[in-house]
Amino acid sequence: MKEEITQRIIEEVLRRLQQKPHDEASIPIGVSGRHCHLKEKDLEFLFGTGYQLTKKADLSQPGQFAANETVIIAGPKGSIERVRVLGPLRSETQVEISQTDAIKLGLKPPIRESGNLKGSSPVTIIGPNGSLFLENGLIIAHAHIHMPPEDAATFNVEDGEYVAVQTDNPMRPIRFERVQIRVSPKYNLEMHIDTDEANAGFIVSGHTGRLVKAEGKR
Amino acid sequence: MKEEITQRIIEEVLRRLQQKPHDEASIPIGVSGRHCHLKEKDLEFLFGTGYQLTKKADLSQPGQFAANETVIIAGPKGSIERVRVLGPLRSETQVEISQTDAIKLGLKPPIRESGNLKGSSPVTIIGPNGSLFLENGLIIAHAHIHMPPEDAATFNVEDGEYVAVQTDNPMRPIRFERVQIRVSPKYNLEMHIDTDEANAGFIVSGHTGRLVKAEGKR
Repeated sequence: MKEEITQRIIEEVLRRLQQKPHDEASIPIGVSGRHCHLKEKDLEFLFGTGYQLTKKADLSQPGQFAANETVIIAGPKGSIERVRVLGPLRSETQVEISQTDAIKLGLKPPIRESGNLKGSSPVTIIGPNGSLFLENGLIIAHAHIHMPPEDAATFNVEDGEYVAVQTDNPMRPIRFERVQIRVSPKYNLEMHIDTDEANAGFIVSGHTGRLVKAEGKR
Repeated sequence: MKEEITQRIIEEVLRRLQQKPHDEASIPIGVSGRHCHLKEKDLEFLFGTGYQLTKKADLSQPGQFAANETVIIAGPKGSIERVRVLGPLRSETQVEISQTDAIKLGLKPPIRESGNLKGSSPVTIIGPNGSLFLENGLIIAHAHIHMPPEDAATFNVEDGEYVAVQTDNPMRPIRFERVQIRVSPKYNLEMHIDTDEANAGFIVSGHTGRLVKAEGKR
């Protein structure tokens, strides 16, 4: 019993050590659950003519929001319900899932940066008003860091560059070796990883990682 | 269309480059799906008095096998069906899942090495003959490398030591920074990771990793 308590205390202390305050060398991490971006035509097809997304919550990047609306996504081996729609609308419909989700659906989406949909996976999207079969549109998002130009200067990195990021959960420290930098004055500093990457490092939103410059640019 | 074909060719070449042959510096990786080890008393409670496991397939470690039998595991937020039972029987019942599974079940298992169950998570196991509520027994397995003494000598590592392992999927290279070495003449060389770790690195069984000695032993 005493050993058990000691073990629990050690685990709690280790957990709290991970929650260190944001300092200049660290990158806040946001874990992206599976989600769907819609173009206007597809929104209207899935939800009805003239339908408009309603905001559930603001996201960390300015102007981006989680909508109240959700869809079902499906593939040859299964479906996943309650996939959150994010707003605002985009020029192309895109669904972002984890590899764990891909196995459940029986689909093989490539790892891509957002918006690069050529040759991506087909997927079915089901809404209250109808369903769509997209030839392309399903991806696994490539890990990336949003940052404004000031932070890019501080970290000495540029848009499109790849860096490594080390995270420090004491039981599952992990280093993501290929993380893309995205610089825009519209961005807040935040690294985005998916739920597989998060769970592999025992990471939750609000944890931080350390940016490590690649020895040679890839 | 041409760009799409080019993109697909690039992805296929990158995929094949990952499948390099096993060389001396590399560790074969086995991905462990969720599974359950049973002690005799629990096997009989779940499957019936005098019940014996039947072999479905041998596993990579000598004497270990996947049984035809499966169980359902459950927690306060959900259940997971068809969880494979592994044989032979053990002295304690133990269920190993991923963090993704833990979230689905609504449970918080610690990351542990196999057999270290003190203060681990409760879990319900359901079989055809009855169900068990275990106060302890649910863990997320700590990444580890099984190796015979000859390989330990080659790699210059010892039982219980922690090392890092780098994997090289071109889209998702990742470094596991805390991997435990387990040495026994009964073992074959193989690194075991769970499905979250595998998916975070786009790794499937048969891929390899490179062992990297820790700079200072932890």
